Amino acid sequence: MNIAMLGSGFIARFYADSLQAQRAKDKLISVYSRNIEKAKKFAEDYSLGFFSDDMDKVVRRPDVDVVVISLPNNLHEAAVEACAKAGKHVLCTKPLGRNASEAKRMLDMVEKAGIMGGYLEDLCYTPKFLKSLKSIQDGNIGKVLWAKSREAHPGPHSDWFWDHEQSGGGAMVDLGCHCVEIARSYIGKRIRPIEVMCWAATQVHPIKAEDSGIGLVKYANGAIGQFEVSWCFRGGMDLRDEVMGTEGTIWLNNFLRTGFEMFSTGKGGYVAEKAESNSGWLFPVGDEIHELGYTNMFTDMFNAIENKTEPMETFYDGYIVNAILDAAYASAASGKWEPVQIEGWRGEKNDDHSANFVSYDVDHYLIKKEILPNGENKLILKHKVSGVVTVKNITE
Amino acid sequence: MNIAMLGSGFIARFYADSLQAQRAKDKLISVYSRNIEKAKKFAEDYSLGFFSDDMDKVVRRPDVDVVVISLPNNLHEAAVEACAKAGKHVLCTKPLGRNASEAKRMLDMVEKAGIMGGYLEDLCYTPKFLKSLKSIQDGNIGKVLWAKSREAHPGPHSDWFWDHEQSGGGAMVDLGCHCVEIARSYIGKRIRPIEVMCWAATQVHPIKAEDSGIGLVKYANGAIGQFEVSWCFRGGMDLRDEVMGTEGTIWLNNFLRTGFEMFSTGKGGYVAEKAESNSGWLFPVGDEIHELGYTNMFTDMFNAIENKTEPMETFYDGYIVNAILDAAYASAASGKWEPVQIEGWRGEKNDDHSANFVSYDVDHYLIKKEILPNGENKLILKHKVSGVVTVKNITE
Amino acid sequence: MNIAMLGSGFIARFYADSLQAQRAKDKLISVYSRNIEKAKKFAEDYSLGFFSDDMDKVVRRPDVDVVVISLPNNLHEAAVEACAKAGKHVLCTKPLGRNASEAKRMLDMVEKAGIMGGYLEDLCYTPKFLKSLKSIQDGNIGKVLWAKSREAHPGPHSDWFWDHEQSGGGAMVDLGCHCVEIARSYIGKRIRPIEVMCWAATQVHPIKAEDSGIGLVKYANGAIGQFEVSWCFRGGMDLRDEVMGTEGTIWLNNFLRTGFEMFSTGKGGYVAEKAESNSGWLFPVGDEIHELGYTNMFTDMFNAIENKTEPMETFYDGYIVNAILDAAYASAASGKWEPVQIEGWRGEKNDDHSANFVSYDVDHYLIKKEILPNGENKLILKHKVSGVVTVKNITE
Amino acid sequence: MNIAMLGSGFIARFYADSLQAQRAKDKLISVYSRNIEKAKKFAEDYSLGFFSDDMDKVVRRPDVDVVVISLPNNLHEAAVEACAKAGKHVLCTKPLGRNASEAKRMLDMVEKAGIMGGYLEDLCYTPKFLKSLKSIQDGNIGKVLWAKSREAHPGPHSDWFWDHEQSGGGAMVDLGCHCVEIARSYIGKRIRPIEVMCWAATQVHPIKAEDSGIGLVKYANGAIGQFEVSWCFRGGMDLRDEVMGTEGTIWLNNFLRTGFEMFSTGKGGYVAEKAESNSGWLFPVGDEIHELGYTNMFTDMFNAIENKTEPMETFYDGYIVNAILDAAYASAASGKWEPVQIEGWRGEKNDDHSANFVSYDVDHYLIKKEILPNGENKLILKHKVSGVVTVKNITE
Repeated sequence: MNIAMLGSGFIARFYADSLQAQRAKDKLISVYSRNIEKAKKFAEDYSLGFFSDDMDKVVRRPDVDVVVISLPNNLHEAAVEACAKAGKHVLCTKPLGRNASEAKRMLDMVEKAGIMGGYLEDLCYTPKFLKSLKSIQDGNIGKVLWAKSREAHPGPHSDWFWDHEQSGGGAMVDLGCHCVEIARSYIGKRIRPIEVMCWAATQVHPIKAEDSGIGLVKYANGAIGQFEVSWCFRGGMDLRDEVMGTEGTIWLNNFLRTGFEMFSTGKGGYVAEKAESNSGWLFPVGDEIHELGYTNMFTDMFNAIENKTEPMETFYDGYIVNAILDAAYASAASGKWEPVQIEGWRGEKNDDHSANFVSYDVDHYLIKKEILPNGENKLILKHKVSGVVTVKNITE
Repeated sequence: MNIAMLGSGFIARFYADSLQAQRAKDKLISVYSRNIEKAKKFAEDYSLGFFSDDMDKVVRRPDVDVVVISLPNNLHEAAVEACAKAGKHVLCTKPLGRNASEAKRMLDMVEKAGIMGGYLEDLCYTPKFLKSLKSIQDGNIGKVLWAKSREAHPGPHSDWFWDHEQSGGGAMVDLGCHCVEIARSYIGKRIRPIEVMCWAATQVHPIKAEDSGIGLVKYANGAIGQFEVSWCFRGGMDLRDEVMGTEGTIWLNNFLRTGFEMFSTGKGGYVAEKAESNSGWLFPVGDEIHELGYTNMFTDMFNAIENKTEPMETFYDGYIVNAILDAAYASAASGKWEPVQIEGWRGEKNDDHSANFVSYDVDHYLIKKEILPNGENKLILKHKVSGVVTVKNITE
Repeated sequence: MNIAMLGSGFIARFYADSLQAQRAKDKLISVYSRNIEKAKKFAEDYSLGFFSDDMDKVVRRPDVDVVVISLPNNLHEAAVEACAKAGKHVLCTKPLGRNASEAKRMLDMVEKAGIMGGYLEDLCYTPKFLKSLKSIQDGNIGKVLWAKSREAHPGPHSDWFWDHEQSGGGAMVDLGCHCVEIARSYIGKRIRPIEVMCWAATQVHPIKAEDSGIGLVKYANGAIGQFEVSWCFRGGMDLRDEVMGTEGTIWLNNFLRTGFEMFSTGKGGYVAEKAESNSGWLFPVGDEIHELGYTNMFTDMFNAIENKTEPMETFYDGYIVNAILDAAYASAASGKWEPVQIEGWRGEKNDDHSANFVSYDVDHYLIKKEILPNGENKLILKHKVSGVVTVKNITE
Repeated sequence: MNIAMLGSGFIARFYADSLQAQRAKDKLISVYSRNIEKAKKFAEDYSLGFFSDDMDKVVRRPDVDVVVISLPNNLHEAAVEACAKAGKHVLCTKPLGRNASEAKRMLDMVEKAGIMGGYLEDLCYTPKFLKSLKSIQDGNIGKVLWAKSREAHPGPHSDWFWDHEQSGGGAMVDLGCHCVEIARSYIGKRIRPIEVMCWAATQVHPIKAEDSGIGLVKYANGAIGQFEVSWCFRGGMDLRDEVMGTEGTIWLNNFLRTGFEMFSTGKGGYVAEKAESNSGWLFPVGDEIHELGYTNMFTDMFNAIENKTEPMETFYDGYIVNAILDAAYASAASGKWEPVQIEGWRGEKNDDHSANFVSYDVDHYLIKKEILPNGENKLILKHKVSGVVTVKNITE
């Protein structure tokens, strides 16, 4: 697979490092940047044969199989359009659009053009996420009741994130897009997100957009998704997921506590990514590229292109994420639950809320079984008709 | 200090164990229970000189200095009334009332009677909480922006919790009262809670009340409090707090991950409190009574009585908690932010929301300072008038 | 219980804080220091009625029930002698002696005088230790095979520790005494320690004694105790125990990872004990006095005096610890295993090494049962006579 | 790179999974097994074009670039010989030999044949190890004083490990080879290992070899390496490293605590590798192949072949590891430190033990600088001539 890169900034370099990390058969061959000097530097750094500040030129070259978009959010749509016209498969950095209508147009473009639109949602490809998703699908924690994803750090590296016009929003668009898709994946992508309640505020930075946000997403099956995002967090990059199921629990820590702990008096310089210091207790990640999902993500994307199948994360998923975020912004403004508006929902239509209460006998529901330290065994029961709660001692 | 106990159930035993744990000069001397057999058993177990099923008799005995209420929520008010009439100091289990009006009447009773009304909010007395609160007061993490407290477990031991009439609610009244007061303490008890947004649902159990709830509490200074409670959690008792400040972060794990890890094939029987099993990986707490705050709580309460000062947690605090929970229930019903209604607010009146943006120079705010791995140093700035975001490279 | 304190330094203050921490009925009433100014200051700080630089005067006062020795190691023996003469119960800071002969003389003195000699081994009283010891005694992890205790920090606060004459040794005498007794307690105090192999070195500090040491202690039942100590550790105080049993595992972290994590940019000053910094990630302990065992230790000691029973840690235990450390120093010098020389061993005499191999059938031992991810079930067997190892597939 | 696999068991499958995990340009093409049925099954499972039970046939085929040895330890030498004769690069599973003389012969063979001999020491390629090694080389923790590596689990899957003749030893040869090389790498591969002290015992299993062992390895620069291995551990696979340096500390947990925690009531079946159960708290690893170092290991090996450079781990390293293990076994038998006997040492010859003590002034060494909670600042000094230890208060 021959790959062209659009963009040459922080994330483009991350992708390039990932593509060149092991002995892969896929190759980055060209780069576009609005700034020709940066394009040149990037091409030199990664030994690419072609660079240009003319996007169409880069996209259209016949040796290019797939295009990776690593541009600011406001440039995604035009880049996707260029790929669609050129008939090149396209992989787009998150979030897909600044809002759902942009995302929907991009989705329509790739589907009309018959190309693959891969949504580069790396955090849905981390080794921990993939394994926990499989566990959930295997039934290890029962039905998912609540899925929380949290991403917080001291704010993005590049200036354009802080400019509402280019980014389309603040921490919610930047980080929330990850969290929304992670929770949605755990709950089940075929379950429809119904409505969103959200708090958002500009707590610290002199910007127009929110630098903190918390949201709740109600799903059709009664499960609740939760996102917590902030650009005000101190201490590194906080990247955690928690899932509660009827039969179990999952806790993931993707970055700050992964079994790697180092104390340094500060001699020796740079240690860990996104740490705020080089001294004291530090918590590096072993292989950041792999831990953040880039390796598995590109493998899935290129396999899907080769096998003409769908990757795990498509433009349709990117669109759903934007739709949920739109509802979150609406709720932050209105102060009430706001509906998630989706054109062309592709999942389950039948919204069954009914909880399946466990019966103890014909007349009673079982509320809880208790085993106390003193060996006492008791059942807490509720009469199905009268609603009266009683205790039944079953100690042998 | 001579102590009378009202109630003889799970929590009464916890209190009694705490009062007798070390070589304390304060003594439990009598007990009341609605069930005379239980009163007798309790008196025997703790070597008490007097027991009765007549509450007034227990409260009024002249050798009693202070009364501890360990009764179901619906019996708190009558018990406080009995103490007020007898002129005995009273310490009441959380939550103070089933709702704010009950709590307000109890607050009024003790204040009119001139007795001390101590609110037994043990989780505001855990060693970790006390030390982190001091750190925050010392300025170690700057201004608190967000304080989250989470309590979740597989549901309470006693039947009456599951009966809405006796308890006044579900997981929110039972566990949320802790979380609300913890977050409020971190943010500052003199800062007024303004409004609440809450999701609550009955996800698993056949009961009338909620078995899961998540709420956001907006404070007058722009900080946000968050509670997460559930009776559906699997894996033990999840008791965690997180605080984000402008200058730092605090993460507390009070129960499931405290540096005590045990694997057992299951030989040997009972190991850890509230664990759901005796085999596999288990996470006991060293000294549950101390770690859950009981020791410090009673020390503070009895010192306050002796010194005629206020304890850290009073009936007034209990009332505020109930007022916040009332707003949470209202929001869960209405689907929008609901105001916290407080009669006789005793904290700060001046609600200053203004964030203090950091200036870089006369014309610019400083958004962020970046030090990249490659040694690059840059500033992200925003023009105060035009709002334009720019980057300034300051690498030496 | 009325308590006299001998010594006014770091550890004396720790003890005093512990004795006054909660509402205890026992009271510190007097203090001795070689330096009268320090004695006076200590008496003022803790509101004591009497202070002196004459040890005998302090010990002999009739209102004193029990004496606590908080003096440098080389002064323990004389202090014990003074208590023995005065017939006062005595509690002595660890290590009991600088070596086993000093310790043995102290043991003999208290036994001859008929007073209680309590050995203040606080780390055998931490809440985590007590609960894990109980678990082991309950059989939760089977027979203990290996017990490791580790204590390491950047070196002691007071000067006399660094002076071999006063201390009797380096990190091994200072920290190893804890580790030896912890491992011994897990393995079983009635099991005889047989021989010791030890490495010790002066790796960093300009001192005569060792600043790092690692030792292995063989017990009569085949179990192995291990200590790891250092005054060269960077990052705080590393205080961890690990136990392997035939049916389970215990891991304790007593100080640096106890579920309390704080990040601070450094505003606000002092945060955590023994941390090497006030900024970056910090790991405070909730209640240091309780977590380090002081509370439970004094409770046990005073109860033992009142009830005329033995406390958990006696001068005899202190003597055994010194005997093991003596063997460790001998081994560090000789480069080979050295016997533990004990006069008047009070534990089990019958040293049964025999492992109890599990038989699969008449002819075979069972080495291991395997359940592979693919569902395969197999047994690894060894023929009792020929010794041939075979595999038996038992997958249903 | 075209790869032939010798062996078709547990480790061969692990390697094959690794080689096929992402979109690599290197390909496994053939397999040898002593059992033709297993060879066939393996070839089918991994879609290989050739299989045989004739080792030479597999090794000699002209399309083979490199051979991977995944056979029991007693078959390594013959396999290396076959590769040397055929002039094929060879990568050999750990340990290289059952003892140092076997390993030395293999080293000589590949060097004489002019082929690359890669030592498949995967745990020296884990992402955490590589990053921590780089940190140490960058000076982040100063000079390494102590490096401990621990591997313990309930025993190997395959029968031949338990047979001394085939394996050459027990847990020390099986797991200790990893630990020895990890510690040696941290301390510095050019630093000569001098002597070893070791305890080994058969604590639980009915076997001839040791099922537990602890060893100390003295290095020429005064650093100490430590290994702890066991086949008696309960609770999964314990894989931890700890390093103490003059300026810092590193703690790695490679398997059991990596930020992935799951509780399951047991519904849903198989969850985590090497866990002893499918219910309760489980600690899976995200991507076992990557976390255990296989990915980076093969990348390094194949790059080295292509670039005609040395990989990080060569047969020479394997030989040194065997030499250290031989000394460990000798010490376990003799009860004293035993020299490490190395033919043709390739590292530093100059063994400088001298510690560099820090001077405070012309007359004094600085032992320690203290900052106490009360703000007191003091220095502990030692007179260079008299050795007297003094305190100097430098509080401003």
